[in-house]
Amino acid sequence: MPVGTKATVKGLMPGLVAQTGSEIILSNTYHLLLRPGPELIERRGGLHKFMRWNGPILTDSGGYQVYSLGDTNKVTNDGVVFKSVVDGSTINMTPELSMDTQHKLGADIIMAFDDCPPSVDPATMSDARRRMLTTKTGSFKKSYDHDERLTQSNERTIRWLERCLKFHKDSGRDAVQGLFGIIQGGTDLERRDWSIERVCALDLPGFAIGGVAVGEGFDQIVRVIGHCAPRMPEDKPRYLMGVGYERDLVTAVRAGVDMFDCVLPTRNGRNSNAFTRTGQIRLKNAKFAEDDGPIEEGCDCAACSPGPLEWGGEGAGGMLPEGGGWFSRSYIRHLFMSDEMLGPLLVSLHNVRHFQRLMLDIRVAVRDDCWLALAERWPVAAQGVATEV
Amino acid sequence: MPVGTKATVKGLMPGLVAQTGSEIILSNTYHLLLRPGPELIERRGGLHKFMRWNGPILTDSGGYQVYSLGDTNKVTNDGVVFKSVVDGSTINMTPELSMDTQHKLGADIIMAFDDCPPSVDPATMSDARRRMLTTKTGSFKKSYDHDERLTQSNERTIRWLERCLKFHKDSGRDAVQGLFGIIQGGTDLERRDWSIERVCALDLPGFAIGGVAVGEGFDQIVRVIGHCAPRMPEDKPRYLMGVGYERDLVTAVRAGVDMFDCVLPTRNGRNSNAFTRTGQIRLKNAKFAEDDGPIEEGCDCAACSPGPLEWGGEGAGGMLPEGGGWFSRSYIRHLFMSDEMLGPLLVSLHNVRHFQRLMLDIRVAVRDDCWLALAERWPVAAQGVATEV
Repeated sequence: MPVGTKATVKGLMPGLVAQTGSEIILSNTYHLLLRPGPELIERRGGLHKFMRWNGPILTDSGGYQVYSLGDTNKVTNDGVVFKSVVDGSTINMTPELSMDTQHKLGADIIMAFDDCPPSVDPATMSDARRRMLTTKTGSFKKSYDHDERLTQSNERTIRWLERCLKFHKDSGRDAVQGLFGIIQGGTDLERRDWSIERVCALDLPGFAIGGVAVGEGFDQIVRVIGHCAPRMPEDKPRYLMGVGYERDLVTAVRAGVDMFDCVLPTRNGRNSNAFTRTGQIRLKNAKFAEDDGPIEEGCDCAACSPGPLEWGGEGAGGMLPEGGGWFSRSYIRHLFMSDEMLGPLLVSLHNVRHFQRLMLDIRVAVRDDCWLALAERWPVAAQGVATEV
Repeated sequence: MPVGTKATVKGLMPGLVAQTGSEIILSNTYHLLLRPGPELIERRGGLHKFMRWNGPILTDSGGYQVYSLGDTNKVTNDGVVFKSVVDGSTINMTPELSMDTQHKLGADIIMAFDDCPPSVDPATMSDARRRMLTTKTGSFKKSYDHDERLTQSNERTIRWLERCLKFHKDSGRDAVQGLFGIIQGGTDLERRDWSIERVCALDLPGFAIGGVAVGEGFDQIVRVIGHCAPRMPEDKPRYLMGVGYERDLVTAVRAGVDMFDCVLPTRNGRNSNAFTRTGQIRLKNAKFAEDDGPIEEGCDCAACSPGPLEWGGEGAGGMLPEGGGWFSRSYIRHLFMSDEMLGPLLVSLHNVRHFQRLMLDIRVAVRDDCWLALAERWPVAAQGVATEV
């Protein structure tokens, strides 16, 4: 799922997003709650109509942003009190408010409001959280008990999920919107088991693994996903939240995961970082100044090849490209050096298509059980094939 | 002609520009000379290939920007010495360098390097030029003789044109690139006549009126265009540079002008200002927060209506819009309030199409001599119909 944080996949018209093969997108409850507000979007007929995306949408619960973005939050058993970055007002985010907001947005899949515990790596924490939790040398403060925090997170997550589910059913919205539960537990596999047992016991249409890829490193990601995914219901979608790089996706699919979202394709694209089968390239680099090639040879995105959107629209007066072509690395570098919007747009477009192409190839690998062929085609993901899950 | 200053119509993929009905675009020699440089673009196979625009391109000569953007320029009879804003280097812009640069860019129509005299309205001058030319109260300094400056501009413009033409012919590029001459003379009709007589005496494939809409007001624009256009060769394109608003275009066409360029559609679009038949609207305004309508009812641009580019591309997996639709004013306002790239993109797109639709309707008015019908359809341009030219 490409991420359309504020009801737009940054820079890309919905038709272009669809053209990348994306069939479902993610949007962020936290951001839309703050601006333009769920009531306004509800009055517009919901998020699909508002942003003109005709396919399925998933909204997250806002839980993750409340932690990752807020420096003055107060977390209690009831929910999280945080300050709006838009107008400074105080918002009391609860499971019920998250549900109500997601009902108004009207996404097809909505997520439970969970209590995401801090990463074990202080380097990946927000400044405020790190100050709060760790000493100057980076270890946890004595007053902070990480194990206790994981237990607290696990218990809150299931209690909050039950409140979400009650609110969701009472509203009658469960007939049209599917609520997914989220599994927490950090890198502690026993606590993950505890969470899986309780969360997956509820009658929900899908389940997600949360709290992964928050700084714990590839080995721990593999360990946690490899442990959790096979223990989740096989007949329901398994969704790994906020992940990730190519090797992570391959690893996770091999463990049984079905769904992903990540900002990497668009965020890195805006910084001129293009994903290729052999790794990322930074198109701002001087070495691309005279490079006539496309971002990636053989890519079929609208930046790397003449797509149906590129030329010959009805209004084009019959103009057609004379010999195909692509936006060269040289041209894209020029766009970035000149701060031209088209640069971020083209690289984002390519990157989204890059991940969709990878996922399409992964489907083939699943069907035909030909993972080594996948690793050959996608050297950047080979580690994900080579890793035992 | 939409303006693609730095080899891109800001934010719009070439296919989208073509879809607006634009068949030719303008790009700026000055900006491309500074970055990425004409040699780099020449090595890429020229501007068309570099920016992936398959239709005709016109490049200006750089003369206008040398004056409008430079505060430390030194103008002599030989040319203009100015400092690069990119790397601080000194550039000696001459008619020959302008030609050579435009040859390397490879546009279909190239413009002569002219000496654009200062506007008569100090309010529209650059700060440096105003300090140089005027007193604190805004009148011209005694040491500055505006009439003398107009004469100097006229004489330089024809001498520089002759140098351009010689360089152009000597290079052999006149076989593939058409050089247009530019008429100057300010708001002094006798000096305009002097310029027309000399410039149009040369065997060139087209002629432009320069130095118009530089702050002199609608009445003076009408007076100058109404005087000049009919005196220019009828069998060659007449191009009014850098103009303008709808009424200006209508007025100019009625006087005999065939070609225009202007940054208004894209520049104003980036600031959320959308052109409509009845005038501009600022989509950032709070009154549009809950407005479900398109930017303009009845507009056929890809922002206001479901176009062929919007949905159903090959990669879209058969997804099609269920009931047409448009990007609402409410949504576009949200995009601007959230600093999302898609906002500038959509309004620019609409604005470019707005002017193309006006020009298409003007063609009908020319053919059928039905100007009053045009004024009814385009109230914003009615003054251009009502004005005697």
